[in-house]
Amino acid sequence: MTRKGILFVISGPSGVGKGTVREALLKGRDDIQVSISASTRPPRSGEIDGVDYFFMDRDTFLKKVEEDQFLEWATVYSNLYGTPRDFVVNNLNNGCDVLLEIDIQGAMQVKQKMPEGVFIFISPPSIEALAQRLCGRGKDSQESIEERLAACEQEMQQMSQYDYVVVNDQVEKALEKVEAIIIAERCRIHNLKLR
Amino acid sequence: MTRKGILFVISGPSGVGKGTVREALLKGRDDIQVSISASTRPPRSGEIDGVDYFFMDRDTFLKKVEEDQFLEWATVYSNLYGTPRDFVVNNLNNGCDVLLEIDIQGAMQVKQKMPEGVFIFISPPSIEALAQRLCGRGKDSQESIEERLAACEQEMQQMSQYDYVVVNDQVEKALEKVEAIIIAERCRIHNLKLR
Repeated sequence: MTRKGILFVISGPSGVGKGTVREALLKGRDDIQVSISASTRPPRSGEIDGVDYFFMDRDTFLKKVEEDQFLEWATVYSNLYGTPRDFVVNNLNNGCDVLLEIDIQGAMQVKQKMPEGVFIFISPPSIEALAQRLCGRGKDSQESIEERLAACEQEMQQMSQYDYVVVNDQVEKALEKVEAIIIAERCRIHNLKLR
Repeated sequence: MTRKGILFVISGPSGVGKGTVREALLKGRDDIQVSISASTRPPRSGEIDGVDYFFMDRDTFLKKVEEDQFLEWATVYSNLYGTPRDFVVNNLNNGCDVLLEIDIQGAMQVKQKMPEGVFIFISPPSIEALAQRLCGRGKDSQESIEERLAACEQEMQQMSQYDYVVVNDQVEKALEKVEAIIIAERCRIHNLKLR
């Protein structure tokens, strides 16, 4: 049984520690290919094209946008960043899993183009704590509760677009869960079909 | 986030070692409740009602069958065996995961009544080997190949009813995969809804 490659998308709110989880995950393993972003930002000293980024000028980038060659793209501080579709698809077609770490907005773009990906929401522990507090107690002012509930609900709505939720209370525990998700997804019947 | 309980069904062909996987899985953990079967067989020395089995007479068993109180049942050597629905459902409603190890026929009965369960097919490594051999080579007689293909296809059809396939080439590796599936399923968004 030769397996199809699986796209794993690690995402979550800013500051939740998804980059730390990604780095810990990749340490000492070579059975998953990190997605390499395209960027119009000039290479920094030591950065290698095709390893750190696919560096390209703005015109080339925008042409690729027109040709729908990015799974997602965004502007950050006047530079353009994107996830090249070909790099991901070629790896998947070769039976190689791909890991993409990205913010929520980017993940939702990717989901539209590759809904078959595995979308993992890294959640801060405070959302749970907040939800519990809001549900169980009445100590805060009405206004304060409503504000928090709104923020909590927005997070929960974004969560519901994902396949998995991993609470990042401790990096080791979050890592164990993401590793388990990778092992489990590789055993899923719909991922075992012949290429 | 209080979680619903999840029903994990470990199943597979006779002799595949699913009992060994179950025992290894349960060793030293108390976060999953094993399903306890009902049986009309008389208790053996040391067996405790409600721990080893729910022992009951034939009339009581058949009344429960009529009342649809079993997730599955079967006759083995003139004794009746079944999986009491209440025991499983009550544990799940209390947020406790339940593990059921059962043959393919039983698993398919359970799936009809509780399709939301997680169905794990423990596969012998020889099916893969067989499939590979049949696909890639032409050394055997036509008849032999056809017989093997038919057997292989039957297994594959049963497999396709499951959510996961775990090849039991080494118990430790199979165990690691089943443990990963349990961790991953507990992170799945549809299992995280409030009870």
